[in-house]
Amino acid sequence: MGDPAVNQTTTFPSVNDQLKSVEQRIREQAGDEQHPDLRSALEHLLAAGGKRIRPTLGLLVGNMLGAPEDKLITLGASVELLHTATLVHDDLIDGALLRRGMPTLNARWSPAATVLTGDFLFARAAKLAAETDYLPLMKLFSETLATIVNGELTQMFSAHGVIDRDNYYNRIYAKTASLFEMSALAASMVGTEDELIRDSMKTFGYEVGMAFQIVDDILDFTGDQSTVGKPIGSDLLNGLVTLPAIYFAEANRYDEDVLSLPEGGWKETARVQRLVDAIRQSDAIVQAMDEARNAVRRALAALEVAPASPEKDALEDLAKYIVDRKV
Amino acid sequence: MGDPAVNQTTTFPSVNDQLKSVEQRIREQAGDEQHPDLRSALEHLLAAGGKRIRPTLGLLVGNMLGAPEDKLITLGASVELLHTATLVHDDLIDGALLRRGMPTLNARWSPAATVLTGDFLFARAAKLAAETDYLPLMKLFSETLATIVNGELTQMFSAHGVIDRDNYYNRIYAKTASLFEMSALAASMVGTEDELIRDSMKTFGYEVGMAFQIVDDILDFTGDQSTVGKPIGSDLLNGLVTLPAIYFAEANRYDEDVLSLPEGGWKETARVQRLVDAIRQSDAIVQAMDEARNAVRRALAALEVAPASPEKDALEDLAKYIVDRKV
Repeated sequence: MGDPAVNQTTTFPSVNDQLKSVEQRIREQAGDEQHPDLRSALEHLLAAGGKRIRPTLGLLVGNMLGAPEDKLITLGASVELLHTATLVHDDLIDGALLRRGMPTLNARWSPAATVLTGDFLFARAAKLAAETDYLPLMKLFSETLATIVNGELTQMFSAHGVIDRDNYYNRIYAKTASLFEMSALAASMVGTEDELIRDSMKTFGYEVGMAFQIVDDILDFTGDQSTVGKPIGSDLLNGLVTLPAIYFAEANRYDEDVLSLPEGGWKETARVQRLVDAIRQSDAIVQAMDEARNAVRRALAALEVAPASPEKDALEDLAKYIVDRKV
Repeated sequence: MGDPAVNQTTTFPSVNDQLKSVEQRIREQAGDEQHPDLRSALEHLLAAGGKRIRPTLGLLVGNMLGAPEDKLITLGASVELLHTATLVHDDLIDGALLRRGMPTLNARWSPAATVLTGDFLFARAAKLAAETDYLPLMKLFSETLATIVNGELTQMFSAHGVIDRDNYYNRIYAKTASLFEMSALAASMVGTEDELIRDSMKTFGYEVGMAFQIVDDILDFTGDQSTVGKPIGSDLLNGLVTLPAIYFAEANRYDEDVLSLPEGGWKETARVQRLVDAIRQSDAIVQAMDEARNAVRRALAALEVAPASPEKDALEDLAKYIVDRKV
């Protein structure tokens, strides 16, 4: 896999230096403590850190609206740390050993160390949010944290294998779109008092986040295992019925495999493998992708109120990249 | 064990109604979600919830300084939830099955559910802190959270069985005194602009918290297993060398059991049992208790600047109760 910073350079050059400052700010969080193990964990998480799309979104929105750079960098670090904290606890909960093709923290550490590292990242994310010195942003941070954790609890306590659109949309909002929404809204809050612009940026973040997760869920079916970094169909194997499976189920209500899902059929590997193959070859993939494209269209419509600028163009590119990406 | 609310009635009647409001505020946190399991976990934690000494401290300080009641109640709920969140993750990490004589969450739930419940409590504590609408308080909250988690990480990554005073004081500050300090300081911050009073209340909270943990650590040696709710000498059995053991070690440098501790002797149950008996019968208990009493004296000295009032008297009682308690 490529160096995320290099990817960023090619994709959104205007925020490349700021993204490096965000990573620097994240690295500093382990610096004042005497925990070499923690520092190496943070380095590991940064190295495995993927696309930095949440901070990129915030930086582009904030730059477009003339927000102070230092606050945007603090904000970006806070958002990325909050994201990383939820991943660390998520991987522990799922017992996942790989994420983006790299070993997860819990594959190398004890559960105790993994729990505490996640807590540490939460604490640092909250501290960075507080360092923006802006109360509405702290409130937004704590609300987003509550949304994310509630979503995870709902997912855990819900029956598995259930085919339910509302459940799906709520879940991907809590899991992904809430943090995209926060990133865009927070950046606009430190950039403008204009409520219309703030609302539009919030909508932009929300729609882009929903599209991002839908595409992630499609890639779980169509992606190449070596690029996606986890087994194909892993969601369904975990009892998570995502949008492609929902479309397929709606079109094949009486399919034996579909009918079996809520009854525990998702636990049968051979059955799930058959379903995954059927879904890959069906219209469900295209239908789910159309839904993601519609979300991107709504995001671009929300962006129209923003002032013309290179950042606005970059945000358009970012929204389009969301649905065009292969990883 | 008795009902904590009833205990409170007899101990600090002036805040009894407010404490009930704090508990109500805590209960409400699970109310708007569709998680009966989570609500029952919260009820379990509230029932096992002990003495509510942190909110009591904040309520007394705030009432004394004329702080708005609604902010004090929100604050008390936030502090107690933060405390509970750290206990939930702590018990999971230690694999503890009992706390205060009642089953811990992880004794009844999966590790995954326990991790997420702790995260949920963190999120709700942060949300309540934000609801006070006071930025310095949010910063204090996030700093305290960082202090607590750092302390836990240090404890985990430190060698066990090490006899070190500085390590001990840092640990009990992070584990206990930081939250007492926060509770008293936060209540004073919403009650007065007077920096001298705020500093004094911070000191009061700090010293009372240090004394509280020292006494806790003494009770781990001297207490009755059925009242303390965990095995006698459990700290030492976990490789944690607390103040009584430190005093004993300082007076018995060449004792074979003492010498063995950093080399892994704390893992030998028979040896630890022998040490616990020796410590119980030594001067170490009295010396540690003297140290706790000195901390309480410093707390009372800090309290002197506060205006004469029934709450000031109650805070004196609270400080003295800390060292006189048996559980």
